[in-house]
Amino acid sequence: MTRGIWVTLEGGDGSGKTTQATLLERWLAEQGRTVVRTREPGGSEVGVLIREIVLHHRGDIAPRAEALLYAADRAHHVATVVRPALARGEVVIQDRYLDSSVAYQGAGRVLDGGEIRDLSLWATEGALPDLTVLLDLDPSVARGRLDAADKPFDRLEAEKSAFHERVRAAFLALAAAEPERFLVLDASRPVDELAAAIRSRVADALE
Amino acid sequence: MTRGIWVTLEGGDGSGKTTQATLLERWLAEQGRTVVRTREPGGSEVGVLIREIVLHHRGDIAPRAEALLYAADRAHHVATVVRPALARGEVVIQDRYLDSSVAYQGAGRVLDGGEIRDLSLWATEGALPDLTVLLDLDPSVARGRLDAADKPFDRLEAEKSAFHERVRAAFLALAAAEPERFLVLDASRPVDELAAAIRSRVADALE
Repeated sequence: MTRGIWVTLEGGDGSGKTTQATLLERWLAEQGRTVVRTREPGGSEVGVLIREIVLHHRGDIAPRAEALLYAADRAHHVATVVRPALARGEVVIQDRYLDSSVAYQGAGRVLDGGEIRDLSLWATEGALPDLTVLLDLDPSVARGRLDAADKPFDRLEAEKSAFHERVRAAFLALAAAEPERFLVLDASRPVDELAAAIRSRVADALE
Repeated sequence: MTRGIWVTLEGGDGSGKTTQATLLERWLAEQGRTVVRTREPGGSEVGVLIREIVLHHRGDIAPRAEALLYAADRAHHVATVVRPALARGEVVIQDRYLDSSVAYQGAGRVLDGGEIRDLSLWATEGALPDLTVLLDLDPSVARGRLDAADKPFDRLEAEKSAFHERVRAAFLALAAAEPERFLVLDASRPVDELAAAIRSRVADALE
């Protein structure tokens, strides 16, 4: 039986993760592979309930409680969705994982990114993807894609911009620390070129 | 302003925690103290939602996911209920906390008690009660209190019995490791004697 592999896509909103996941899924299906497309939070039945608390609870949730809820979702998702799919020899394509938690939490400066990483690794008994594709993009370009309106930058926008710069830097630092696991791509390149680069690395991993 | 204090009650089911919490609350009210009676899981609004997932979800929850959900409940409860009450100078009386998690998880042998302790301490930024009352009782006596029926012990009952012996031993080991925080009482003693012993230690803590 062919070994399953686990690919995660990371990067800011607007960097093209969904497009690339869809192209990769299509190519893998053409190769006769069974693909599981998934995400966190909410990639399992329990995860949907947790996502409901995190996203729709009225009133603040204590920062550590929120981090623990995300970690609980991750623990259940990896144990009941990701690991069984890999054991069946399938390919798991996942929109965001560990690295997003670390990058966003670290950039938010409330909790320490390293602690968030340790928490996730405890939750999943150390589960790391075979390949993590980082779609790196200048946040101002990503913003232009998400919102074409030409409105002036106010203070809030400037703060958001600084936040997204910190997220980007955090992603790049994570990739630099684990070059074997990461494929870093300039997400401003044409969609087809990016897809070809991802396919090439996935093909290597499948061999 | 008088300093708030935080008292937790620990011990197996049937050891008399609720009775002693009620007597302590009554006595503190007579002293003019404001008392918050609380519990985990479910001691906050978010906690009620989490408790709903843990207790009423159909189908298994991965063990680490469950531990993380309890930790999330604890993080939110301590941040939004316990700490604010203590800051107002109130007395918090809580049915079960950290020590129950460690003792029950450790006895269940799925997860390591020490890891559960670390997780809880991360969740709460190291919050520990001023006083933890351990109502220690032979599990067979506790069982007799909970279920007076004189039915024979089958294999399942014997396994349960061994589990509760491990829980008891774990509680006693935790108390031995932190003698300053714990008051260990023989829960087979008369209710009034136990209440007097607890009042005495609480009075010391309030001074």
